[in-house]
Amino acid sequence: MLAELCCKRRPGLWRMLAVAVFVALLGCLRAQELRGHVSIVLLGATGDLAKKYLWQGLFQLYLEEAGKGHNFSFHGTALTATEQGQEVVAKVLESLSCPKDVAPARCAELKDQFQRLSQYRQLKTTEDYAALSKDIEALVQREGLWEAGRIFYFSVPPFAYTDIARSINSSCRPGPGAWLRVVLEKPFGHNHLSAQQLATDLGSFFHEEEMYRVDHYLGKQAVAQILPFRDQNRKALDGLWNRHHVERVEIVMKETVDAEGRTSFYEEYGVIRDVLQNHLTEILTLVAMELPPDVGSSEDVLRHKLQVFQALQGLQKGSAVLGQYQAYSEQVRKELDKPAGFLSLTPTFAGILVHLDNLRWEGVPFLLMSGKALDERVGYVRVLFRNRACCAQSEQHRAAEQSACLPRQIVFYIGHGVLGSPAVLVSRNLFRPTLPGGWEQVGGPPGLHLFGCPLSDFYAYSPVREQDAYSVLISRIFHGRKDSFITTENLLASWAFWTPLLDSLAHEAPRLYPGGAENGHLLDFEFSGGQLSFSVQQPEQLVPGPGSAPAPSDFQVLRSTYRDRPLVTAWPEELIAKLADDVEAAAMKAVRRTGQFHLALSGGSSPVALFQQLAMGHYAFPWAHTHLWLVDERCVPLWDPESNFQGLQTHLLQHVRLPHYNVHPMPVHLRQRLCAEEDQGAQAYAEEISALVANSSFDLVLLGMGTDGHTASLFPQSPTGLEGEQLVVLTESPSGPRRRMSLSLPLINRARRVAVLVMGRLKREITLLVSRVGHEPKKWPISGVRPVSGQLVWYMDYEAFLG
Amino acid sequence: MLAELCCKRRPGLWRMLAVAVFVALLGCLRAQELRGHVSIVLLGATGDLAKKYLWQGLFQLYLEEAGKGHNFSFHGTALTATEQGQEVVAKVLESLSCPKDVAPARCAELKDQFQRLSQYRQLKTTEDYAALSKDIEALVQREGLWEAGRIFYFSVPPFAYTDIARSINSSCRPGPGAWLRVVLEKPFGHNHLSAQQLATDLGSFFHEEEMYRVDHYLGKQAVAQILPFRDQNRKALDGLWNRHHVERVEIVMKETVDAEGRTSFYEEYGVIRDVLQNHLTEILTLVAMELPPDVGSSEDVLRHKLQVFQALQGLQKGSAVLGQYQAYSEQVRKELDKPAGFLSLTPTFAGILVHLDNLRWEGVPFLLMSGKALDERVGYVRVLFRNRACCAQSEQHRAAEQSACLPRQIVFYIGHGVLGSPAVLVSRNLFRPTLPGGWEQVGGPPGLHLFGCPLSDFYAYSPVREQDAYSVLISRIFHGRKDSFITTENLLASWAFWTPLLDSLAHEAPRLYPGGAENGHLLDFEFSGGQLSFSVQQPEQLVPGPGSAPAPSDFQVLRSTYRDRPLVTAWPEELIAKLADDVEAAAMKAVRRTGQFHLALSGGSSPVALFQQLAMGHYAFPWAHTHLWLVDERCVPLWDPESNFQGLQTHLLQHVRLPHYNVHPMPVHLRQRLCAEEDQGAQAYAEEISALVANSSFDLVLLGMGTDGHTASLFPQSPTGLEGEQLVVLTESPSGPRRRMSLSLPLINRARRVAVLVMGRLKREITLLVSRVGHEPKKWPISGVRPVSGQLVWYMDYEAFLG
Repeated sequence: MLAELCCKRRPGLWRMLAVAVFVALLGCLRAQELRGHVSIVLLGATGDLAKKYLWQGLFQLYLEEAGKGHNFSFHGTALTATEQGQEVVAKVLESLSCPKDVAPARCAELKDQFQRLSQYRQLKTTEDYAALSKDIEALVQREGLWEAGRIFYFSVPPFAYTDIARSINSSCRPGPGAWLRVVLEKPFGHNHLSAQQLATDLGSFFHEEEMYRVDHYLGKQAVAQILPFRDQNRKALDGLWNRHHVERVEIVMKETVDAEGRTSFYEEYGVIRDVLQNHLTEILTLVAMELPPDVGSSEDVLRHKLQVFQALQGLQKGSAVLGQYQAYSEQVRKELDKPAGFLSLTPTFAGILVHLDNLRWEGVPFLLMSGKALDERVGYVRVLFRNRACCAQSEQHRAAEQSACLPRQIVFYIGHGVLGSPAVLVSRNLFRPTLPGGWEQVGGPPGLHLFGCPLSDFYAYSPVREQDAYSVLISRIFHGRKDSFITTENLLASWAFWTPLLDSLAHEAPRLYPGGAENGHLLDFEFSGGQLSFSVQQPEQLVPGPGSAPAPSDFQVLRSTYRDRPLVTAWPEELIAKLADDVEAAAMKAVRRTGQFHLALSGGSSPVALFQQLAMGHYAFPWAHTHLWLVDERCVPLWDPESNFQGLQTHLLQHVRLPHYNVHPMPVHLRQRLCAEEDQGAQAYAEEISALVANSSFDLVLLGMGTDGHTASLFPQSPTGLEGEQLVVLTESPSGPRRRMSLSLPLINRARRVAVLVMGRLKREITLLVSRVGHEPKKWPISGVRPVSGQLVWYMDYEAFLG
Repeated sequence: MLAELCCKRRPGLWRMLAVAVFVALLGCLRAQELRGHVSIVLLGATGDLAKKYLWQGLFQLYLEEAGKGHNFSFHGTALTATEQGQEVVAKVLESLSCPKDVAPARCAELKDQFQRLSQYRQLKTTEDYAALSKDIEALVQREGLWEAGRIFYFSVPPFAYTDIARSINSSCRPGPGAWLRVVLEKPFGHNHLSAQQLATDLGSFFHEEEMYRVDHYLGKQAVAQILPFRDQNRKALDGLWNRHHVERVEIVMKETVDAEGRTSFYEEYGVIRDVLQNHLTEILTLVAMELPPDVGSSEDVLRHKLQVFQALQGLQKGSAVLGQYQAYSEQVRKELDKPAGFLSLTPTFAGILVHLDNLRWEGVPFLLMSGKALDERVGYVRVLFRNRACCAQSEQHRAAEQSACLPRQIVFYIGHGVLGSPAVLVSRNLFRPTLPGGWEQVGGPPGLHLFGCPLSDFYAYSPVREQDAYSVLISRIFHGRKDSFITTENLLASWAFWTPLLDSLAHEAPRLYPGGAENGHLLDFEFSGGQLSFSVQQPEQLVPGPGSAPAPSDFQVLRSTYRDRPLVTAWPEELIAKLADDVEAAAMKAVRRTGQFHLALSGGSSPVALFQQLAMGHYAFPWAHTHLWLVDERCVPLWDPESNFQGLQTHLLQHVRLPHYNVHPMPVHLRQRLCAEEDQGAQAYAEEISALVANSSFDLVLLGMGTDGHTASLFPQSPTGLEGEQLVVLTESPSGPRRRMSLSLPLINRARRVAVLVMGRLKREITLLVSRVGHEPKKWPISGVRPVSGQLVWYMDYEAFLG
């Protein structure tokens, strides 16, 4: 038993057995020291969560651990007056139940023992905490024990956290040598900022290792099974668990209930904060993480989870579809006393498309979906594998176990739904999985059909004993398994991922749905080109959305002229789309004409959207025939975040297949020196251009315009680059990394096509000014952009053009 | 009627109507000129094909065209003596049938007319042909007609082609102003060479526009419908018919019959030549081609078909799986009088994976499958679309017309199978298609299930009147629709595509299968990484294949020593896997230690497998922190196929995300010169190494060993690089591109780890030799590899190590 408890390391190689035994012995000795008295303080002991799950979880812990020599006391506490609280707790304790395999008489005996160890007390002031601490110390001394540790379970509203934390820290910490664990329930903030604030507050009272933030989904048996399953089936999964074989991952939690009676909470949160930011994101990390060699190591698991967050691609408005059941606004009006015309924008349904930017998962859609008032209650993670088979036998003759043409999937079935219990399902044509003890193969009623297949097409396993998530987690708290909880880093990483999306959706009107089976296909959604959209066109909008600002699509792309050259104006999204289309058209034309496309790109923030659009939306772009040149560069190493090249690298080069030798960074870093005159980098770049680009005439040069009228890195009054013979020059910027390398105006003006992209309100003034000046490159270098025989087109968004 | 016949151009824009009317009128005038007498000569008129299809097809043509003012004579000819032939033909003519909508009395009348226009004559000598020509001329004159043209239908064995062609050309051409069309039946050669020979032979007698090569699949109604369907549903298909939406295309023709009685033909051809090279390939071109603006233009269609051939990726051995029904060899022994032990290698089943290398289809698998003695007779083309939907509604509630989660497919059902007739099927959740007149929506028996769905999930259309393929084609010959036939260019392109595969498979033993439903899943196959393989592991081999070499998995990876350093030996696959694992481990270790991994790689063919393994199988490899260096390089431009860097680019860099500035190609091409001493490339590389690699000590250097004992580009007796101070040197190779750049031995020996990869039988001798020599780098440079303080490991496959 003892060995089971503490010898969690499982070295893979028998050769290491000797070492392992030694380590294990050491560990056991330490654990032995730790035995002693553990006090568990349940804060909010008379609340709903406590009544429904936590007392039962504590009893469960007692049943499991008391026999192993541990000594416990359980302290239910609340603000409730002592007598009243005692009554409530007594009632709860009376209703506790034993596992099915415990005989009634024995159960009564155990309950009695547990009740004697449990007591209610009011905890209000810091003095109350100090008193509790003294009582625990007295108990320990009285019983001739020594104190191992204290667990404080915060089952209280978050606004109470700070006061309680302060009191515990100041007056109720155990003495030296004993540990402290505080258990926190969500919500952990409302966005990245508030979560960070909360974390900082708590961090002033507790060490990171003392805090156990609960996401009860991590205690659900099917979820807790994901890593062990991946571990025990490493061999079979090794070649499968990646973008080459996984077609998609679905992480779903559907509810039939709505938010009635809870709108005061729900109105503040909505489905994304309530379910996706925490439960579904946690599940995603378990599915997507690189499996550590030892899944028993909390630190390794936590580190690998964090790596998943680093790989998540940022979400955009188009990554989500939102819905709201029709009765919701009325419920809010009623419960929160809102005026008759009030319409809530809080989503009660969301579908989200997540992509990971790493080698294992690049391109694999992770689809997250959750909602209230849907047609069924069910939760699952479904990993669907690509179908790469072609079957010679007609489908009438296909047997699930052999046919490579039937669907291949692995499902972690969290609960409810047609199965009604947690399960792990593996298609029979994949492999026969190994599951740990405690799970058994199950059948299910005949004719049961799920995920497109009869149940009999799967190897299906369920836990022998169903366990409530809180029981599972309370046991893990006791055993210090931190990987089943949300660390501060993990929490903040998750909020950092979700907050931008939440912000961008704050004023979006969700699609209304009737609720239940009547939803029909109204909420089905599809992805294409990284964007989600509902499958069925919006039916007549039942209630008009708020926000009366014109949507980008209300406007056409406008064409006009600017400085006597063609001007394209639009909202940013349309503008970038149009520019990307024009770049592709130019590329196609150049490749048809000469077999090559020479494109010179500027740095800065505006082109980033263009790079992303080209990388993600233009599959027919002839990258293999494209040469990329830099318009200008800062004199920093290429890997410096300030480097223009680095932006190109991150937003474009990583995503397309451009031959290495078609990429021409500016040589600002020769011989480990930055733009040293004697290294003649500018001259070398000019030579490279002359050698590779016919007539040194780029097919397309993309420029920007600074608020001072600079373009490329050609600043007003620059002694070089505005005229003369030089093709590439070194210049000085009035700000930022001052030294620059830049194409010269004469070189730019040799291009076949020049596009100037100007975006944002800040550009309004210079846009207006430059529209009026003539050819004065010394004052406004941008005014010197006049291709000798090429075409110049201006691309401006409405903010830059109209203010 | 006339307008229908000749006004096939359908200009899309009404503005062009005036022009179109003019063109149409011109066309009609020309067509009017063409009316007159047409003689159709059926060569081989008493043969099976003629009896079964061709006479009926000619009758059909007569029924359709005679009423339009055309005047015909039908000449059945053969080598058979006149009287005997007349008897056979009379019998055939008697058995002709009219379409169902023709009343019996009218049918009798029409048959009588047709019989009077048809006659048999023996055609043997050139004189016979001259006589036929005279008779036709006499007939035309006698009847007061003028001659429009002559059709010669070659329903004779290919060996007879040349003689007949010569006779027609010399003695039976119509006079000036009348056209000649010769219709040829497959086989058109046996491979590219023989097809070319045959085409050259025929080309000396006929012009390309005179030849109509029949692939009767192009006359099958569902196949003939592919282009019109794509044309009429352009709008719906425009965004769908590409790699972003199509998951795969299956082109299938399954037969239940076997080759009994036809083995003398079949043994020469096999299933690929019999079905895939022609029928299935033609269908593929119709599915994959860029749709011409006017699908009525034969020239445009033919040109676009040819473009498909240009885009086909070459097939390799791994692109195919082959089978042979068990009874086949016995049938061959019996019919061809082979000895008792004779085993045929001719495949009677094939699955082929085809990829197209263009922007529309890149990455989309086209799966071709055909075989004899299978479980059902059926032919179809199935375009399966990707599933990009996520449905909020449970699957119990999904309606085919709305649900985006049901399969989406378009099927051209050629015939037989569960449907029993030609059909076009479109999933209801895709779009409601437009079909031309002559096709009607059909139901089918309730409960019918195909392609994973009930028939009711499809919009299903069948032709109102089923037409035999030969009737369709005879009409198209008459109307000069060359796009329904195989041009010489098309034929040679197809053979050029298939011949290399046929050659490479010539000695492969096909998997034996019992035939019929008993095949079970034995012939199901799957693709992965561009390779096909059977889904089910080879069961006990019923007949041993040739080559009894042990399989790689029969051996474990062995460890031993070589030149007193660790040696890893295994079969190639295991060896590469082990080396890749070791490289990854070294990378992980280096990145943990220093944040960087400096890897120097050799070129050549052996490392390619390693590159692929690293690219495809090592998701956790820390590429972002890896610097790639070259061990040696040829003095060629980096994009030259001979360049070592180009191999790295193709097999590794394209697939992983290495920052541009972490890739360090050798500067063999400075200032557009190759390895010019004065450009000091070697020195520059040495400086780059010194600047970036701590102590110039690479974390891992991968070397190979040449049969002369060279390593890197350090050859025996090299005056540079074997010793001294220089880190990077220019050397001369005794062969290949002679000038090289190479790391020097002293630099290599500074590495923390050196891996030498040696593979293949050719290395056996040098492996043996080097095992015995001491430190003699002048003679055998590889013997000078002795890391000063690093580790050296040898990786050799069994062929290199054991011979």
